[in-house]
Amino acid sequence: MQLPDLKTLLINLEQGVLTVTLNRPESRNAMSLSMVEELTQVFSQLNQDQQVRAVVLRGAGGHFCAGGDIKDMANARAVGIDAYRELNRAFGIMLEQAQRLPQVVIALLEGAVLGGGFGLACVSDVAIAADDAKFGLPETTLGILPAQIAPFVAKRIGLTQARRLALTAARFSGQEAARLGLVHFSEASAAEIEQRLDETLAQIKRCAPQANAATKALLLDTELQPLGQLLDDAAQSFANAVLSPEGIEGTMAFVQKRTPGWAE
Amino acid sequence: MQLPDLKTLLINLEQGVLTVTLNRPESRNAMSLSMVEELTQVFSQLNQDQQVRAVVLRGAGGHFCAGGDIKDMANARAVGIDAYRELNRAFGIMLEQAQRLPQVVIALLEGAVLGGGFGLACVSDVAIAADDAKFGLPETTLGILPAQIAPFVAKRIGLTQARRLALTAARFSGQEAARLGLVHFSEASAAEIEQRLDETLAQIKRCAPQANAATKALLLDTELQPLGQLLDDAAQSFANAVLSPEGIEGTMAFVQKRTPGWAE
Amino acid sequence: MQLPDLKTLLINLEQGVLTVTLNRPESRNAMSLSMVEELTQVFSQLNQDQQVRAVVLRGAGGHFCAGGDIKDMANARAVGIDAYRELNRAFGIMLEQAQRLPQVVIALLEGAVLGGGFGLACVSDVAIAADDAKFGLPETTLGILPAQIAPFVAKRIGLTQARRLALTAARFSGQEAARLGLVHFSEASAAEIEQRLDETLAQIKRCAPQANAATKALLLDTELQPLGQLLDDAAQSFANAVLSPEGIEGTMAFVQKRTPGWAE
Repeated sequence: MQLPDLKTLLINLEQGVLTVTLNRPESRNAMSLSMVEELTQVFSQLNQDQQVRAVVLRGAGGHFCAGGDIKDMANARAVGIDAYRELNRAFGIMLEQAQRLPQVVIALLEGAVLGGGFGLACVSDVAIAADDAKFGLPETTLGILPAQIAPFVAKRIGLTQARRLALTAARFSGQEAARLGLVHFSEASAAEIEQRLDETLAQIKRCAPQANAATKALLLDTELQPLGQLLDDAAQSFANAVLSPEGIEGTMAFVQKRTPGWAE
Repeated sequence: MQLPDLKTLLINLEQGVLTVTLNRPESRNAMSLSMVEELTQVFSQLNQDQQVRAVVLRGAGGHFCAGGDIKDMANARAVGIDAYRELNRAFGIMLEQAQRLPQVVIALLEGAVLGGGFGLACVSDVAIAADDAKFGLPETTLGILPAQIAPFVAKRIGLTQARRLALTAARFSGQEAARLGLVHFSEASAAEIEQRLDETLAQIKRCAPQANAATKALLLDTELQPLGQLLDDAAQSFANAVLSPEGIEGTMAFVQKRTPGWAE
Repeated sequence: MQLPDLKTLLINLEQGVLTVTLNRPESRNAMSLSMVEELTQVFSQLNQDQQVRAVVLRGAGGHFCAGGDIKDMANARAVGIDAYRELNRAFGIMLEQAQRLPQVVIALLEGAVLGGGFGLACVSDVAIAADDAKFGLPETTLGILPAQIAPFVAKRIGLTQARRLALTAARFSGQEAARLGLVHFSEASAAEIEQRLDETLAQIKRCAPQANAATKALLLDTELQPLGQLLDDAAQSFANAVLSPEGIEGTMAFVQKRTPGWAE
C-alpha cells in the first residue's frame, strides 16, 4: 500500500494491520471535510489492497471523534444550500465505503463518540469502547439532523433503540453501548482495550483473508437481496472458495494438523 | 389543539406535552372499537399540530391495556366475517398512525400490557415499564391471532424474540421487557416512573421540534427505502434544516453559548 | 405421521411432540449430506401433519452438531465445483424448510454448536442452550465460507453481532449466546434444560395449533412484505381464525371458564 500524504490522519501499516488515527486532537478530532476526503482516499486504496487484513480506526488525544466541524458549516453557509447538502452527503458516502471495506474494521472508541463519530463507529465489524466513553447524537439539540448517521444507527442497533437516542439526544457510556449492542466490548482501561484489540487481531489472523472478505460481503448483502437468491449465490461462492488457493491450503492444513499459511 | 369530546380517553395538554390516558379501568382499559376510533381522532389532530412536542400514553387504574374488547367481538359475530376483518384492521391502522406521529411518543407501561396493549407499546419512541408490569401475547391461547400486533412486535424486538413470545404466549415482567429491548427502562415504583418521565421530557425539550420530527421520519424510512436513496434525501433534509429558523437559532445559540428558544 | 426409516436421525413421536435427534455421535453429529436429506424428508412430512404441534431438535452423545462432514467434502472434490455448490445449497434448502415449519420448533443446544449446527439453531422458535455449550462459526479459519449459514445468523442476531462472529470465528458459551439473543435460555445442567423444555411444551399446549401456525407464518412474512399489505392480509386471517373451529372453541371455553380442547 502506497501511503498517501495526509493532514488529518495518522496512518501506520504493520503486519497487515492498517491503523488509521483521526488526528485533530485540538478539536476532539471533529470530522472536517478534509478528514472525510482523506478517509475516502485511504478507503479507496484499501479496496484494492489484499495485503491489509484489518483496519483499526481510533482517535488521537483520548477522543474518538466529537462530530462535525463547525468551520466547514460556516464555509458552506457562504456558498448556500447545495454546499450543505454536498458536505453532508460526502460524509455518508465515506460511511458507505467504510461499511463495504473487504478488510475487518475494528473501532477503538474512547472519549467523545458523538454525531459523525457515532456514525463511523456504526460501520465497524468489531467495536471496543472504553467504559467511560461518551456516546450521543446531539444534532437535534442544535436544530439540525443526524442525517447521514441515523440510518446507520438504525441498522446497527435497531429502530427501537435508535429512535430513543436520536430523539432525546441522551448521552451514554461505553458500558451502556455494549448493553445496547452498539459495541461488542467495553473495557475499564486503556491497557484492557489494547489487550482486547490484540486478542481480536489474533482471531482475525486465523481467518483466511479472502474467505473473510467474501463472508463480509455476504452478510452485508442480507439487507439487499431476498433470501433464496442470496443462498443460491452463496452456494456458488462456497464452491469457488473451496477450490481457491485458500480453500485448498485450509483443507490441507486441517488434514495435516498444521497452521495454514495465512495464520503463520 | 382543539381537544375533542372523548368517552374512552382522558387527555391533558400542558407545556407542549399531551397526555393520553386510556380510561376504561373497569375492563383494565381493554381496547374497544370506540377507543380505537378516539385514538385515531386524537392522532389525526396531532399530525397537524406543531405546538405539541411529546405525547404520553398511559392507562388509568394501574393498568396500561389488557387487550381487545370482548363485547366488540360479540357484536362483530352478529354481523359476520367482514366485521371481524374491519374491526381488526382498524386497530392496525391506528398503530400505523401512532408509529408515524411527528411528536416523540412515550409509553408508561404498568399492570397489564397484553395483546393490543402490547402492540401499542411497540410504536412508542420511549417506553418506560414498571418492574412488575405483565406483558404477553395471549391470542393463540384463545384460538385467534395477534394479527395486527405481531408485525409491530417483530419490528420492535426482532423475529427471534417475537416468535417465542407469540408462539408460547409466555407472560413476562417489565424487567424482562427491558432485557429484550421492548422497553427502554424498567422502574421499581410509580415515583421512579414519573422521575424517568420527567427526565425524558427534559431531554426532549432540548431537541428542536421540527428537527426531531424530520429525524423520526428518517429513522422510520430506513425500513422502506434503499440506503443510497435514503442518504441522498437525508442530505437534502439536512441542508433544509440548517437554513430553517430552527437551524439558524440553534447555531446562533451555540455560538452565543445560550439556550435556544425551543428549550427555554 | 408415518415415520420413515432413517440412518442418521432418531425420531420419536409422543403426545404431539416429535423429537428429532441428530445421531452420528462418533462425529459429534456432523451434518452429512445423508443427514440433510433425512431432515428434509422428515420436515416435508411435518409440513402436511396437523397432529404434531412441536418439534424438538437435539443431538445424541452430548453434542448438538459440530458442522459439515469432511467425507462429503472429499467426495465432492472428486466430482468438481458443481458438486460443492449443490452440497452447500442442499443444506440451505433444508434450513429454509425448517424455518417455515408450521409447528413450533425447539432446539436443545449442548456441546458443539458449530457451523451448520449453528445455522440449524438459528431457525428454531425457542432455543435452549447449556451454559457450557460451544458456539462458533469456524469456516473462514479453514479458508471456506459459512455460506448458507451466515444469512440465517444475520437474521437471527442482527448484522452487528453476526459480522464479529463470522469474521473472527470466536467461540462462545451458551450464556453468551443468551446475552446475544441467539438463544432464549441458557441452563446450568441437563436437568434444568429438560425442565425448561417441559415448561415450554406446556406453554405451547395451551396455544391453538392452527392459530400458532398462522401466527408463525405471519411473523416470517414481516421480512418479505410491506407493512400495509401484511396488515391487510393479517386482518383477513384474523377474521378467518375467529370463525374457525379453533376460534369458536377458544371463545366458548373462555366464556365457560374451561380449558379449550387443544389444551386438555
